[in-house]
Amino acid sequence: MGSLGSYTYNNSISTDTIGRVITCKAAVAYGPGQPLVVEEIRVDPPQKMEVRIRVLFTSICHTDLSAWLGENEAQRVYPRILGHEASGLVESVGEGVKELEVGDHVVPIFNGECQKCGHCKSEKTNLCEKYRVNPLKSTMSSDGKCRFWTEDGKPVYHFLNTSTFSEYTVLDSACAVKIDPIAPLEKMTLLSCGVSTGLGAVWNTANVKAGETVAVFGLGAVGLAVVEGARARGASRIIGVDINSNKRIKGLAIGITDFINPNELDKPVHEKIREMTGGGVHYSFECAGNLDVLREAFLSTHDGWGLTVILGIHPTPRLLPLHPMELFDGRRMVGSVFGDFKGKSQLPHFANQCIKGVVKLDEFITHEMPFSKINEALKLLIEGKSLRCLLHL
Amino acid sequence: MGSLGSYTYNNSISTDTIGRVITCKAAVAYGPGQPLVVEEIRVDPPQKMEVRIRVLFTSICHTDLSAWLGENEAQRVYPRILGHEASGLVESVGEGVKELEVGDHVVPIFNGECQKCGHCKSEKTNLCEKYRVNPLKSTMSSDGKCRFWTEDGKPVYHFLNTSTFSEYTVLDSACAVKIDPIAPLEKMTLLSCGVSTGLGAVWNTANVKAGETVAVFGLGAVGLAVVEGARARGASRIIGVDINSNKRIKGLAIGITDFINPNELDKPVHEKIREMTGGGVHYSFECAGNLDVLREAFLSTHDGWGLTVILGIHPTPRLLPLHPMELFDGRRMVGSVFGDFKGKSQLPHFANQCIKGVVKLDEFITHEMPFSKINEALKLLIEGKSLRCLLHL
Repeated sequence: MGSLGSYTYNNSISTDTIGRVITCKAAVAYGPGQPLVVEEIRVDPPQKMEVRIRVLFTSICHTDLSAWLGENEAQRVYPRILGHEASGLVESVGEGVKELEVGDHVVPIFNGECQKCGHCKSEKTNLCEKYRVNPLKSTMSSDGKCRFWTEDGKPVYHFLNTSTFSEYTVLDSACAVKIDPIAPLEKMTLLSCGVSTGLGAVWNTANVKAGETVAVFGLGAVGLAVVEGARARGASRIIGVDINSNKRIKGLAIGITDFINPNELDKPVHEKIREMTGGGVHYSFECAGNLDVLREAFLSTHDGWGLTVILGIHPTPRLLPLHPMELFDGRRMVGSVFGDFKGKSQLPHFANQCIKGVVKLDEFITHEMPFSKINEALKLLIEGKSLRCLLHL
Repeated sequence: MGSLGSYTYNNSISTDTIGRVITCKAAVAYGPGQPLVVEEIRVDPPQKMEVRIRVLFTSICHTDLSAWLGENEAQRVYPRILGHEASGLVESVGEGVKELEVGDHVVPIFNGECQKCGHCKSEKTNLCEKYRVNPLKSTMSSDGKCRFWTEDGKPVYHFLNTSTFSEYTVLDSACAVKIDPIAPLEKMTLLSCGVSTGLGAVWNTANVKAGETVAVFGLGAVGLAVVEGARARGASRIIGVDINSNKRIKGLAIGITDFINPNELDKPVHEKIREMTGGGVHYSFECAGNLDVLREAFLSTHDGWGLTVILGIHPTPRLLPLHPMELFDGRRMVGSVFGDFKGKSQLPHFANQCIKGVVKLDEFITHEMPFSKINEALKLLIEGKSLRCLLHL
């Protein structure tokens, strides 16, 4: 039994299962919005360049919700194991895997890094040619097949390179990041997606410097991770914007200096922010997934040098609500995937920053419960009551 | 009389006119699309922080055409003196002007640089708080009045901080760049707008490196200046795109390696460019002022690191034809004004690069005629027959 802070969990790994099919519990999605069914499934051994992971903790992100609800029709593939924020231990490794071994502490990443392709070798992108995030992918990269099976032998589909709502999962080794075993595994789930995405957008995409100003639109987990990243960088002003005034408290706890509820203003939020900051912030971060919000975020930055980073997912047919001539005022807009982190290369260092307290993760996990209660955890997120609910497997 | 290459012009400046109203010839616009009237006007002496310039050469850019045609209703102010590409000599300086003196060789710039404001002091922008390009401005900054008058005493409005279709014009000193007197003044007109805009977009905005690949959409003067900038930087592939196949010859003379006429393709031009370049170019430049072209330019760049620079003016109510999720493929899009050159600080060096032959300007001036034939020069540009027609004043 391992103990980290108040957490106690079994981190022993049996080698009896190596090379064998494992039968274990998973939460299986059978249709859009249908309660997940926690049931026994079978998990194949890892194939070439794959690893099998014993998942110890998982949490739920809005992208899981979106897939669960089947918001994008093309993503409606069932039965399927969702989940992409997690932490765990390597149970076994497939042929050719050299950088991971049995017992390693790992964090799955939905945006993999093969470390060999042109993209991985470029300093300009974290979008691996082969293992980048692909919401339409539902099988393993190597053979287009599933590693999960129902008890009666039907394939169960994968999700976002990860499928962490399962006691065991199989990942391409490009999608498993080894982290220092002294890192608190239960918090490392946050590095799988939300916190890395928000914080990386500040550190990598925008590269915010001490004394600069920031506005964050949408104070969910990703938005609050932006706040944490800006706080850690020494931003002089961090303006949190959310239509839910309850977000102010959490925002203040993490580091916002100002809070705006657009519904309580008598003017557009960008006008207010420009007034507050002498013309606009250096950087704005759109974490709401709403195009009208995106436009406000864009206009909230200072002309000449403002940069808006898009983090929110926009499941809408609408196009960008910007006129091309508006780009001649010196404001820019860029998308950021996984905070522009190259997962395999950079997350180990990021985990160490968390261990050292440079980055504080305490505020992000608001609830905990056993894995069997995953449907309750989904409900909490839908209702906006949780940031992250940690499920113990 | 001065002589530079094959050019001979009178570069003597009389000091008799200092402090007095000058009567001289100008080409005055009296209404949308009406032939310019070359007639005598009166030009006030320069006020505080202004200079009066004797214009020796001027040329015509599409922005002059657009204003002449009154395409943007808000810009329809008459009578007005258009023109913003020119070169000449300082005739006199107003109170407080220290960096310019009588006889200096100067190039007017529509995007001024006061060198004192927060924007001018920032490395991130060339948009001066006070003197940046403003197509709606039609009077002098200091007092909101005109320095031009008709013979019968009515004000004649200014254009783009410059109004160069006149033998004499008054500029804010922030909008006059002193250049080395050995630079060939007749070619320096190109630095006022078109060549600086295109070449600066390559050197400053995109910062193209040797060996990188470029696609240029629209091979007018600005697009060809992009080609010249990319050639000078050592780009390995410079793909020119234009629906007018006649542009191929000029493009090749300056430096394109490939030419595409989209109308002769059986597929979208971005597919062709991706095929030609192993996934897309590093940089694309939109110099056509057309949103469908802009989308093709965007999609022609490589995912992960592609950058599209918008140079074209888009006088359309249409918004950007991009879905927000398309920004998650690592392609970016930025606008570039005056090639991101800070005019007063950087054009003198750029002029020297031209003198040294690092940048070649020979191909850009395709026609020459006396100032009195300015309406013929307008017609040549409208018909796509000229790149730049140099008018001798």
